[in-house]
Amino acid sequence: MSWNTFGRVLRFTTWGESHGPGLGAVIDGCPPGLPLTEADIQPFLDARRPGQSRYTTQRREADAVRILSGVFDAGEGQVTTGTPIHLMIENTDQRSKDYSQIAKSYRPGHADYAYDAKYGVRDYRGGGRSSARETAARVAAGAIARLIIPQVRLTAFVCELGGDAIDREAFDPQAIGENPFFCPDREAAKRWEALVDRARKDGSSLGAVVECVAHGVPAGWGAPVYGKLDADLASAMMSINATKGVEIGDGFEAARLTGEQNADPMRPGAAPDDPPVFDSNHAGGTAGGISTGQPVVVRVAFKPTSSILTPVASITADGQATEVATKGRHDPCVGIRGTPVVEAMMALVLADHRMLHRAQMAQR
Amino acid sequence: MSWNTFGRVLRFTTWGESHGPGLGAVIDGCPPGLPLTEADIQPFLDARRPGQSRYTTQRREADAVRILSGVFDAGEGQVTTGTPIHLMIENTDQRSKDYSQIAKSYRPGHADYAYDAKYGVRDYRGGGRSSARETAARVAAGAIARLIIPQVRLTAFVCELGGDAIDREAFDPQAIGENPFFCPDREAAKRWEALVDRARKDGSSLGAVVECVAHGVPAGWGAPVYGKLDADLASAMMSINATKGVEIGDGFEAARLTGEQNADPMRPGAAPDDPPVFDSNHAGGTAGGISTGQPVVVRVAFKPTSSILTPVASITADGQATEVATKGRHDPCVGIRGTPVVEAMMALVLADHRMLHRAQMAQR
Amino acid sequence: MSWNTFGRVLRFTTWGESHGPGLGAVIDGCPPGLPLTEADIQPFLDARRPGQSRYTTQRREADAVRILSGVFDAGEGQVTTGTPIHLMIENTDQRSKDYSQIAKSYRPGHADYAYDAKYGVRDYRGGGRSSARETAARVAAGAIARLIIPQVRLTAFVCELGGDAIDREAFDPQAIGENPFFCPDREAAKRWEALVDRARKDGSSLGAVVECVAHGVPAGWGAPVYGKLDADLASAMMSINATKGVEIGDGFEAARLTGEQNADPMRPGAAPDDPPVFDSNHAGGTAGGISTGQPVVVRVAFKPTSSILTPVASITADGQATEVATKGRHDPCVGIRGTPVVEAMMALVLADHRMLHRAQMAQR
Amino acid sequence: MSWNTFGRVLRFTTWGESHGPGLGAVIDGCPPGLPLTEADIQPFLDARRPGQSRYTTQRREADAVRILSGVFDAGEGQVTTGTPIHLMIENTDQRSKDYSQIAKSYRPGHADYAYDAKYGVRDYRGGGRSSARETAARVAAGAIARLIIPQVRLTAFVCELGGDAIDREAFDPQAIGENPFFCPDREAAKRWEALVDRARKDGSSLGAVVECVAHGVPAGWGAPVYGKLDADLASAMMSINATKGVEIGDGFEAARLTGEQNADPMRPGAAPDDPPVFDSNHAGGTAGGISTGQPVVVRVAFKPTSSILTPVASITADGQATEVATKGRHDPCVGIRGTPVVEAMMALVLADHRMLHRAQMAQR
Repeated sequence: MSWNTFGRVLRFTTWGESHGPGLGAVIDGCPPGLPLTEADIQPFLDARRPGQSRYTTQRREADAVRILSGVFDAGEGQVTTGTPIHLMIENTDQRSKDYSQIAKSYRPGHADYAYDAKYGVRDYRGGGRSSARETAARVAAGAIARLIIPQVRLTAFVCELGGDAIDREAFDPQAIGENPFFCPDREAAKRWEALVDRARKDGSSLGAVVECVAHGVPAGWGAPVYGKLDADLASAMMSINATKGVEIGDGFEAARLTGEQNADPMRPGAAPDDPPVFDSNHAGGTAGGISTGQPVVVRVAFKPTSSILTPVASITADGQATEVATKGRHDPCVGIRGTPVVEAMMALVLADHRMLHRAQMAQR
Repeated sequence: MSWNTFGRVLRFTTWGESHGPGLGAVIDGCPPGLPLTEADIQPFLDARRPGQSRYTTQRREADAVRILSGVFDAGEGQVTTGTPIHLMIENTDQRSKDYSQIAKSYRPGHADYAYDAKYGVRDYRGGGRSSARETAARVAAGAIARLIIPQVRLTAFVCELGGDAIDREAFDPQAIGENPFFCPDREAAKRWEALVDRARKDGSSLGAVVECVAHGVPAGWGAPVYGKLDADLASAMMSINATKGVEIGDGFEAARLTGEQNADPMRPGAAPDDPPVFDSNHAGGTAGGISTGQPVVVRVAFKPTSSILTPVASITADGQATEVATKGRHDPCVGIRGTPVVEAMMALVLADHRMLHRAQMAQR
Repeated sequence: MSWNTFGRVLRFTTWGESHGPGLGAVIDGCPPGLPLTEADIQPFLDARRPGQSRYTTQRREADAVRILSGVFDAGEGQVTTGTPIHLMIENTDQRSKDYSQIAKSYRPGHADYAYDAKYGVRDYRGGGRSSARETAARVAAGAIARLIIPQVRLTAFVCELGGDAIDREAFDPQAIGENPFFCPDREAAKRWEALVDRARKDGSSLGAVVECVAHGVPAGWGAPVYGKLDADLASAMMSINATKGVEIGDGFEAARLTGEQNADPMRPGAAPDDPPVFDSNHAGGTAGGISTGQPVVVRVAFKPTSSILTPVASITADGQATEVATKGRHDPCVGIRGTPVVEAMMALVLADHRMLHRAQMAQR
Repeated sequence: MSWNTFGRVLRFTTWGESHGPGLGAVIDGCPPGLPLTEADIQPFLDARRPGQSRYTTQRREADAVRILSGVFDAGEGQVTTGTPIHLMIENTDQRSKDYSQIAKSYRPGHADYAYDAKYGVRDYRGGGRSSARETAARVAAGAIARLIIPQVRLTAFVCELGGDAIDREAFDPQAIGENPFFCPDREAAKRWEALVDRARKDGSSLGAVVECVAHGVPAGWGAPVYGKLDADLASAMMSINATKGVEIGDGFEAARLTGEQNADPMRPGAAPDDPPVFDSNHAGGTAGGISTGQPVVVRVAFKPTSSILTPVASITADGQATEVATKGRHDPCVGIRGTPVVEAMMALVLADHRMLHRAQMAQR
């Protein structure tokens, strides 16, 4: 959780800029013996990959991952060895000319000014380290994390786009993969086509809310007090570019409920050894920072992409007034491609906590 | 950020249960030479202290802090020495009998079941380690953190209680300390008296939203990618008992804005060396995880207290169906006393980031 | 491994100065359900306790430990709960007057000058935080660590004192507890009586080498590359006051052997599932930073106590020339009481690594 | 200090196996604005590079480093940006056939058995992750660390080889770079030629002791208690392949001195603001874990290379008795090429501590 490393016993470190030769992730602490080839990672990168529909940036990146260490094939298929796994993705479509203006002026809403204020130097090609391209490394790392928690099923989706929310009654998990918005409500997906099309044509942008649900997390993962499962999820999600809010379970809505409304009644499971059954899941699957066996539910707010065609007042690097309108190839709604990133971060947090739980609890 | 320790170069570790002999915090990495006596800490504990109005728990704790290490008086007043500062608070009002039922049944919404599922053993007296009493240690530690960031002015307040929000036009910082709700809107404070009174009498409970604003944070604190200022604030806030959501700046509302609406235009400062002026602060004072010089704004959702008089279905520790109604001395709205805790956590995150910034940036 | 915290998943943080109200350790991450009372810790503290023979300092400290958190008795005996365990020891024999001179002059070989150079302020009463009293907290923490590695048997002893080494042929583990030097060679122990007596009477001091052997560590604990078992042991031992060297297995002697001499031949164990048998243990029980199943052997060099009666040239805090002769109550050979500290640190490192191994290896 | 990451605020993570496509280091936390190109790193790698004399392994690796991130040239030369610097070195000379036997049998003294015992799977080509090739990544990272501590001058050299020590009177720093042994004593270098030649021809191997001295470290770096400068140096050195011992200053010899002999008398510096002058440096430049302003002196014991031609009893991976004689291309004395690695690790520890000191001490 510091600078470019995340996690405790399953840790990953990412490196790379938007317009450098490439980017990567070093995953450390992965259990050995897990079957792993590039084919286990690539589908997740493909889901995040730009240029797949007209609703995302037209930058074209193959985002082909290479595993450079930490695996070995002793004759029975390639498996992890328990040593650091380095995943590398080359940058292939870097039109630096698109970004020449950023060298001199600060794009409002971007990290340009903050980076210069902090570092006094900045790789201005495409945002450098602050580019959303960094999230490709997270998605690659997330694919490794999934191998460590095979009992968990993750479902991430956009539940609200440009202020237009899905109808929970129309929720169909099948739909998520069948539209360019990771939208589980087919009607909403249709409406969003028009919304995003208009924003794209206007050079405007939209925000979104992404939800991720983890089924199959057993009771007991997480730890008080500063290592709460919720706290780690919050940190993980708020570290994603353009996120401004995180909720667990009912989130801010819980603050508007009474204690009676917010209670999640428990009943004995069907069989004596079954886990308890909950009547509701306002809590989002955690209590006291520890999983309860219910689905773990996280919601993440993505602001609208800061890159817009409308000129906005700003300053130049030497302090003069200017206006900035960002041309170029941008996602009109960065929350869409943020969906696989949210899912990856959830996998990484859960895998770390599974391993931490094992460390302390021995046999369990 | 792990178990019971928070922070990187300014780190604190808390210990203690609700009904043990006491609790404490060890603060490590504090700069030397800062004047520090108990009197610098006690006022913040007093603000969090229970039993001060009829709107909070009637448990009576002096919450008197003792400094057991890390300070020295060489004749010119007591100062920090740079070595670990141990702050200890004794528990004085522990009526264990109030909690006898918890030993056998799991209180819905509490961490009882999760703790047992994880640890197989649980200090059931008052919630043990999951009790909100742990936050007293945070508030004590926060008082040390404040000494490290004298340029920062923190203002935490309840901005919504039981679904009733303050009127931002009526915001008066002076009011915050003059009502039992940390409420900056005098009219709202009056309404809340009735709200909380009713909840208390009904044995019900209410949620709240707490906002904390940090003025005076210079541009440049924070760090990409997993050590973003926002990510650390999110982790810090979500580690507080009963929190279910965290927002930076406009938070979830930002997901409903267009790029144009969400932009924070920048203009040159008045004098050549002045920092830029922003026309708005949708971002809440950060960009790319780094402070921009604008006020840092965090909002935290507190669920309603889980302890309510209305019986809720639950199970016993041996898996039988039961109903639990929680008698005893509880805060009808835990978010109220959460306010000084939010402020303390913000101080701790900012102090850590100030020191991290120094580590990397040398002269600055 | 940072400031006042050691460990990764089993972590402890110590606080307290020589002449403050007390000192303590917070142990975080301990598995739950382990029977623990003060009686499980006190014997180890008693072994380190000053004033037990004329060969150690005459400072009289009860060193009585109190467990202030992290344990609970639900009716079947007190056990750990998995939450932070705070162990506290009060200081009872603090004759500050003995140390009045240190306020003005730097004792050569002590940390006085370095502390002032770093912090600009210093608790000069008895060395403050740099006092060997801090090691009491380690010994207390070590007693907890032992509970986590019941399969391991630790034996620490002084193998050389004032340049006089034990005869390995005369090694009798029984003897260690029967003389004031933790000496396994009864003849050597007799010689050391005279050695230390003379040093004590002369106001001089002696160094020592302490060895610790861990039997029962299974193959597989430890981890490449920077988390090697050897690296952690080296860090742990070099963090003890007055240590100047650490060896694993043959240590520096290995640098003088040929590859043939240094080889540890392996043979199959007696039964098919038995671990291999090694003909020798030059390696000291580790290879590539991972335990091999052989006894883990560490040796630690303690310099002679810096406090001596002979005046040594020094400077005052304001830079003037002076001479310092340290009167007061000092160990003539700090290595002797360092023995239980070495053993405690080894327990803490091994317990951490056992838990780390579990985290990554699942079933094992 | 955990698995494959070392450091606190200046952190590096290494990845890569002996016979994979390459290896690398991600350096995180580096200050921005430091001029950096491959040419600043390559000379240090060249010093460690194999195949440069007949006294080291004949494996031929270009060890050409590429900087893949964390630098930028805005027109005034390439500088660090403060974001993670990824350094990558491709493996070019991997004759896997040389290592086919290792797949089936455990080489005594190597990590083969320990890795299998831990992980149950092992990249047996050239030792995989346990190969000394990993140290190339450390040397590359060390070159970055040097940029952060320009005031420090590091000198590493072999002070003993095969039991034959240098004559300290004949110490000539100029000589170190003029012989293949990093030997500062020209006479000893000549003797070592014969020693190593004989070992090489016999298929035997020799150990060595490497010393590293850091001039220019100001008083005040380091921190009690578990983050002592000495403790970090010990951890850093003991993490290098084949090391078995670490000494600070007089090390084990200090255990044989009296307090009078071991004292380092201090005198006022020449001018009022000058640091004090020490008459000797038994302490090796630290006291209480903090630098004193004297040269920091570390000594590291390297065991003889485990790969020897003489057959040694061992077991196969399925537990049968066998004998292993290691043919192939090996360093007859791994300590020689360990010299630049020791120097790199010292640079990395010191740079981390300089930055930590800045974090806590503000202006200083």
